[in-house]
Amino acid sequence: MRFARLGDPGSEIPVLLDGGRTLDLRGVTRDVDAEFLGGDGLARVRAALEAGSIPELDGAAELRIGAPIARPGAVYCIGMNYAAHAAESGSAPPEHLVMFMKSPNTVIGPNDEVAIPRGSTKTDWEVELGIVIGARASMLDSPADARAHIAGFVTANDLSERDWQLAVSGGQWSKGKSAPGFCPTGPWLATPDELDADDVRLRSFVNGERRQDSSTADLIFGIDTIVWQLSQYLALDPGDLVLTGTPEGVALSGRFPYLGAGDVVEIEIDGLGRQRQRYVDA
Amino acid sequence: MRFARLGDPGSEIPVLLDGGRTLDLRGVTRDVDAEFLGGDGLARVRAALEAGSIPELDGAAELRIGAPIARPGAVYCIGMNYAAHAAESGSAPPEHLVMFMKSPNTVIGPNDEVAIPRGSTKTDWEVELGIVIGARASMLDSPADARAHIAGFVTANDLSERDWQLAVSGGQWSKGKSAPGFCPTGPWLATPDELDADDVRLRSFVNGERRQDSSTADLIFGIDTIVWQLSQYLALDPGDLVLTGTPEGVALSGRFPYLGAGDVVEIEIDGLGRQRQRYVDA
Repeated sequence: MRFARLGDPGSEIPVLLDGGRTLDLRGVTRDVDAEFLGGDGLARVRAALEAGSIPELDGAAELRIGAPIARPGAVYCIGMNYAAHAAESGSAPPEHLVMFMKSPNTVIGPNDEVAIPRGSTKTDWEVELGIVIGARASMLDSPADARAHIAGFVTANDLSERDWQLAVSGGQWSKGKSAPGFCPTGPWLATPDELDADDVRLRSFVNGERRQDSSTADLIFGIDTIVWQLSQYLALDPGDLVLTGTPEGVALSGRFPYLGAGDVVEIEIDGLGRQRQRYVDA
Repeated sequence: MRFARLGDPGSEIPVLLDGGRTLDLRGVTRDVDAEFLGGDGLARVRAALEAGSIPELDGAAELRIGAPIARPGAVYCIGMNYAAHAAESGSAPPEHLVMFMKSPNTVIGPNDEVAIPRGSTKTDWEVELGIVIGARASMLDSPADARAHIAGFVTANDLSERDWQLAVSGGQWSKGKSAPGFCPTGPWLATPDELDADDVRLRSFVNGERRQDSSTADLIFGIDTIVWQLSQYLALDPGDLVLTGTPEGVALSGRFPYLGAGDVVEIEIDGLGRQRQRYVDA
């Protein structure tokens, strides 16, 4: 199943994308949130779908696409999780899972305009596969237990201000990861049965030119290992978002210019849809 | 004014501590949350107090003390913000504000038991003054603008697992800061008029022995500077919690043992109250 949220920021309508139809889930749930994902929401949607009781949403094509999940309780990010990206960032591949956090208020729709923050000269793109948590994961016994705690996957852009992340941070990256709008998410949330998330192609483009082109098969720490390992250090809650890391091809490499007003970034993951953001001055 | 939340986890009752009286705020607000702190909540409490229309809460003394704020949208932490603590951690005082994040689901009541996580051998205390945000702060012009965005202050314990923070983290501290229960908060939220937050004494004790004893007057980056600087990099939202850093006297210094089952930690800040946690094995 594919879930999305359509409408103005703060009043998005939860929908199910069913082939060419957009079905209005307001009769089943208030939102695609922790309560829905962590409870019996998916089962209720499945039952309603089989009963044919979910109406189509009129005028869906005219609505803004929001992030496919309500504001997460936390956004965890895995760093340096593709060997070639670690190398272009000047680092060796990590021995241990590297985790930092992003403010949850950075999450916006996949096609929303992004304001380059005042004072930023190094705003950079990062296409990433995002894991959405579906059941509390704490102290899991093994990676094999991880999948039962995953509600689905999303396309995400882990935008970064490299000076703020690296030059004026004392080494803690969150400062350069949390500007307003720095986490375009969506267009949809796909349940795990919809794709082979361990081997999907992910790509980014700036003004139509390809920048990143890799596969989640190249992840150093794979999806199940990430969820299992994080669960040893903290509790993942329903609705939380875990970004799994970005492959090579970002501006930090020195091979491409950073983003400026007027630029257009497109990122896409096979089976999870494509984003398109125009960048403007704040 | 002093606000607290009393009752079982997840169903705390918002109260106003008015001298010796505990007043039941449920007629005024559902919770001490973003909506209350960011809206006209404080004004409504003031009006109701003057009108004498807030009833006392029966049996308040028997209730558990929860964190004085609902789960924050984000918990930002300032690192290395007391010179002597930077030194005991093996670092020079920072040139730039060092910010990392803690999972918001770590926030618990001030006197709740803390489970030392499975596999932890280096669980450490950190008494800190916490700032609670009252109005969105984004791109503030100067530190002088900060105070209008602060709802109040709290006592907080920024618990840390030092191996997870430093040895297996790749340098990103959040991994050792986010175990369940790792942010005891409260007992109460005091509005800024209640104390001189820029010069209050903060202390910690383990099994009755003093460990930390300093003053917020020793902060390298003061309260207003923290809020102003953070607002350049991200947007602080109502209900967010900002921990301002810890002074010297933690186990990481090598001068004291780490926490184990049976230990009791007490931390206190003048005007913001005292916490007392018993530590148990997970």
